[in-house]
Amino acid sequence: MDVITMAHGSGGRLTKELIEGLFYNHFKNDILLEANDSAVLPSIKGKPVTTTDSFVIKPIFFRGGDIGKLSICGTVNDLAMSGARPLYITVGFIIEEGFEIKNLEKIVESMSKTALKAGVKIVSGDTKVVERGNCDGIYINTTGIGVLERDICLGGANAEVGDKIIINGNIGEHGASILTQRGGLKSQLKSDCALLHGLIADILDSSKQVKVLRDPTRGGVATILNEIAGQSKVSIKLKEENLPIRDGVKTLCKITGFNPLYLANEGKVVVVVDASEADYVLEVMQAHPLGKKARIIGEVVEDNESRVYLETRIGGSRIVNMLTGELLPRIC
Amino acid sequence: MDVITMAHGSGGRLTKELIEGLFYNHFKNDILLEANDSAVLPSIKGKPVTTTDSFVIKPIFFRGGDIGKLSICGTVNDLAMSGARPLYITVGFIIEEGFEIKNLEKIVESMSKTALKAGVKIVSGDTKVVERGNCDGIYINTTGIGVLERDICLGGANAEVGDKIIINGNIGEHGASILTQRGGLKSQLKSDCALLHGLIADILDSSKQVKVLRDPTRGGVATILNEIAGQSKVSIKLKEENLPIRDGVKTLCKITGFNPLYLANEGKVVVVVDASEADYVLEVMQAHPLGKKARIIGEVVEDNESRVYLETRIGGSRIVNMLTGELLPRIC
Repeated sequence: MDVITMAHGSGGRLTKELIEGLFYNHFKNDILLEANDSAVLPSIKGKPVTTTDSFVIKPIFFRGGDIGKLSICGTVNDLAMSGARPLYITVGFIIEEGFEIKNLEKIVESMSKTALKAGVKIVSGDTKVVERGNCDGIYINTTGIGVLERDICLGGANAEVGDKIIINGNIGEHGASILTQRGGLKSQLKSDCALLHGLIADILDSSKQVKVLRDPTRGGVATILNEIAGQSKVSIKLKEENLPIRDGVKTLCKITGFNPLYLANEGKVVVVVDASEADYVLEVMQAHPLGKKARIIGEVVEDNESRVYLETRIGGSRIVNMLTGELLPRIC
Repeated sequence: MDVITMAHGSGGRLTKELIEGLFYNHFKNDILLEANDSAVLPSIKGKPVTTTDSFVIKPIFFRGGDIGKLSICGTVNDLAMSGARPLYITVGFIIEEGFEIKNLEKIVESMSKTALKAGVKIVSGDTKVVERGNCDGIYINTTGIGVLERDICLGGANAEVGDKIIINGNIGEHGASILTQRGGLKSQLKSDCALLHGLIADILDSSKQVKVLRDPTRGGVATILNEIAGQSKVSIKLKEENLPIRDGVKTLCKITGFNPLYLANEGKVVVVVDASEADYVLEVMQAHPLGKKARIIGEVVEDNESRVYLETRIGGSRIVNMLTGELLPRIC
């Protein structure tokens, strides 16, 4: 059989064949293969951390990744943002009747490869099939469990006046690349989709003065900085000239009117760190393959407005709001 | 605004309003309100247990429940089947553009009420919105985390020759009820959708001889007994006259040709227990509100075929296979 049929979601024989023939084959590990209603895990020493994300990205295969790689990276990264070491992932597929099994296999392979790289085990799964026209190919939920072994408490409410804001590289590349592919534009832009747990471990090993880590996915850098400003009751000042943006993204933004500060990233982390250790953390980040272009992009300032300001090249200052309306639907 | 728009899935201002105005309001707890990329949980003493399920049921509101109640019951029950105490749930919504916010609120209220009853906290969530025509209203993923505090190891591979098979009540009611509602038939049949963790705790408190617990959802009793027979390399013999089936379900099955053994249940558990303690476990189950109609329906027999047999009223015996093809799509 070449395509997914409703019977693959019945819970019966074809579901079993899909699970045993495809999922077990790629995801195999001792816990998953127990094949019970739930997965019993070894005891966790430290505080468990959990996060969930559903992925509905369009197109499902894109330059720099696919929905499978993205679904593992996204959840591993969210775990890492709390300082946790990622351990386990559960996977829920919703698949449209008629979806090609060879594409499902490509996605599953990609998930398996990314999970291996991240050192996480896929321990539980679920597959539902819906009739043609009730899903756009495939949607994936991944939920992660990690362990917080460090004695830290990172969080959006911890930013303080004077702290520096660092990002590990060029912004807006995931959003820009998806945009060009949807528009059928010729472009070399690639999604930055990547696993950040290694870079985060280096950052946290190097300094006890890191206050917030957050990945600027949907809504971009502007939106997450507004969240932090709101949660911490501070304002944030960005320097336009310090924002690392690739030429291709700049050009695309000029043509389309998009603002790179709102474009999604899938391999970036915003670090809020005490000024005293900012330069050292920056160096540590630059020494990591995913942080070569790391830059200090701004700082936390005193102001009761909980706003994000952008100091432009020509010396002006304007307010950067949270994303309003919809920029690019189904970006992740 | 009365309906969900694409902007509710943007990650920006409207997403924030939905999260703070609706989800936080109903699901509120100290962990969720931290509002970070992932939720840091208190240490878990014992083995953590996890399970994931996506819900695509049609219709989303049905007699006996709704997709919200079902999504909490289903995941709590799967945790309970391993003997775990349910602790936390994460929720991933995929919502179709144009979905009425008042219906979303009804679903969220129902989830919140059911979670409270189950003693679980909803600690992390995600919302994606897809364009009209790319989802049928709403799909929900719930992933659960529980703790196994008992020194037991339940699993589909543990059934042994001589063990008795018990079920806690009438079979096929979820499937039958959904079937009548889809067909617009007049019927009083109600889904059996219920939280089973309390009943399971009573069962496990009463006996150390319980070998397998499994909830016969998609694919029904026939399919999960075939799974157990396969995993344990034994056969199972059911007695037709002992199967508890409500008259309304019997009638419906006569008319439609459906077999109640394949109809889905959402408030049932199949217990495989050593013969020596079967009667006692049965009594304990019958003393629980969700087990009043509990019955011993069969036993594990010696046979190298890993089959399920049904001994009919007239003394014949036939093979009951795993569900083949699709019976009722989108039953959960």
